[in-house]
Amino acid sequence: MDEFSLIARYFAPLEIPSPDVLIGIGDDAAVLAWPAGEHVVAAVDTLVDGVHFPHGLRADAVAHRLAAVNLSDLAAMGARPRYATLALTLPVLDEAWLAAFADGLGKALGTARVSLIGGDTTRGPLTLTLQVLGSVNGAALSRRGAQVGDVIAVSGTLGDARAGLELALAEPLARSQDPLLASFLWPTPRLALGQGLRGVASAAIDVSDGLLADVGHIMRHSGCAAEIDVSRLPLSSALLASVGAARARDYAQSGGDDYELALCIPPAALGAAHALARQLAVPLTEIGVVRAGSGVRCVDGQGRDVTPATLGYRHFV
Amino acid sequence: MDEFSLIARYFAPLEIPSPDVLIGIGDDAAVLAWPAGEHVVAAVDTLVDGVHFPHGLRADAVAHRLAAVNLSDLAAMGARPRYATLALTLPVLDEAWLAAFADGLGKALGTARVSLIGGDTTRGPLTLTLQVLGSVNGAALSRRGAQVGDVIAVSGTLGDARAGLELALAEPLARSQDPLLASFLWPTPRLALGQGLRGVASAAIDVSDGLLADVGHIMRHSGCAAEIDVSRLPLSSALLASVGAARARDYAQSGGDDYELALCIPPAALGAAHALARQLAVPLTEIGVVRAGSGVRCVDGQGRDVTPATLGYRHFV
Repeated sequence: MDEFSLIARYFAPLEIPSPDVLIGIGDDAAVLAWPAGEHVVAAVDTLVDGVHFPHGLRADAVAHRLAAVNLSDLAAMGARPRYATLALTLPVLDEAWLAAFADGLGKALGTARVSLIGGDTTRGPLTLTLQVLGSVNGAALSRRGAQVGDVIAVSGTLGDARAGLELALAEPLARSQDPLLASFLWPTPRLALGQGLRGVASAAIDVSDGLLADVGHIMRHSGCAAEIDVSRLPLSSALLASVGAARARDYAQSGGDDYELALCIPPAALGAAHALARQLAVPLTEIGVVRAGSGVRCVDGQGRDVTPATLGYRHFV
Repeated sequence: MDEFSLIARYFAPLEIPSPDVLIGIGDDAAVLAWPAGEHVVAAVDTLVDGVHFPHGLRADAVAHRLAAVNLSDLAAMGARPRYATLALTLPVLDEAWLAAFADGLGKALGTARVSLIGGDTTRGPLTLTLQVLGSVNGAALSRRGAQVGDVIAVSGTLGDARAGLELALAEPLARSQDPLLASFLWPTPRLALGQGLRGVASAAIDVSDGLLADVGHIMRHSGCAAEIDVSRLPLSSALLASVGAARARDYAQSGGDDYELALCIPPAALGAAHALARQLAVPLTEIGVVRAGSGVRCVDGQGRDVTPATLGYRHFV
């Protein structure tokens, strides 16, 4: 099987027919008609075998993760995802792996109605890069814009994926139905929440490096400080039952890979934000407040400073 | 140095300030105002260490190549390049390497006035993926559209990069001034030619896999056959002097990495195409004709069939 048959068999079916795709998979580049007045929103994320997912992880979960981490970036901007390009570097041509990968990618992109419109297939150590293109009509959400007095809130529950990662490391083929494992394997980008909070939230980020690190990014870009009440972090009963309260809180603060949205919301907009979250059936929990200053400070339920020494995962430290 | 300092030091300077970049490097995604009525043209290419360039190749040449192979795809579409995102996977944090890489990338993108607006930096085996976004106002050039009777033409000279690759393999730091080495190290995407030939040429592709393989792509997409007179292939005097006539022709046919444009041009448009090439000081050589049928046939100056058994480089054969 050569590169062209591989693309025709596994990836061309992931292009969604549309009159806006003037030229799709198979040419030197894709050509897309763009809706008048809509800005282009572009994000790119790479997954490296053994770095961003356990070596040997089932291929459909690798593909789901690749789509989800990118779509989560668009969710944090409040953008509507439209197109994706895939740069796939494979050590060998393993058709069973490719079939499962394409199936997982098709489902993850299809659920978000994202059309695969191009890519590149190369031979080398397993490395996967997806670029997603979305659109916004008006101002995007961003890391900049938090104001002193805004409430800090987070969607879903935190820390489950960190616990699930340990399960996936122990069982890369991941056939069990454990809900923590599922949190790691099948993260759900909060696209509808992000799109609905444009013009409501003042700043947003998706939780990939860990809550405290990611809230720290908002604060650095916005020139403010965060005070997080760690007693209010949303923890699932599965996480508490599995690792206990102390480690659950640690995972929720710094574990990463949650792909929930961390948001700053002006007090006057809280009602609208909660109404939207209820409508979408997405938990939205107030966990802190924006203060003057810089950095992220954690307090417990009694107001004592419990800020950890390091905030989360950082590459190349 | 963490990921954020790395980006701030080496890559943030490659973003070109513009009111169209509403949100650039540093957020979850970039947000770009797009010119009304201009289509979005997206291409992505990956370079893997030791596969697409010799292991140890000087970092500024790696960066130039990464930019050039992507910009060459936009040239083949007749698109104007605008933005790029970089997914950079590095085994170690080598600041000297990074400084040279960023310098090479900045020069290559800057020459084409392309702004770096985002990316992702990860740890793993050296793998580089660039996505470029360009625009066209009207129909793009593509692989589809060649008509029986069109003339097949190619820009520049062919085969030099193949000979230069051998020099680079022998000397990855590549300090010598050999013109063949330079052809491999510093390919020039034919952006102005591609843009100018929109509405003039009927089909186009950039020569990356090798002339015959790439002309074959046009024919497959257009439903025609190519007849190439290999005695007319444009060969540089440096190539002929270095490897002799027989190997020079072989390199020109199948060597790859030329990043010239192969074009199909209706006879009535030949005058306009040559006038544009002269104005741009780009050699444009007629090398064949489009016939009914399928595939690529080579003939020599006496009309004898000299089609080689395999047409060029194919991954995963």
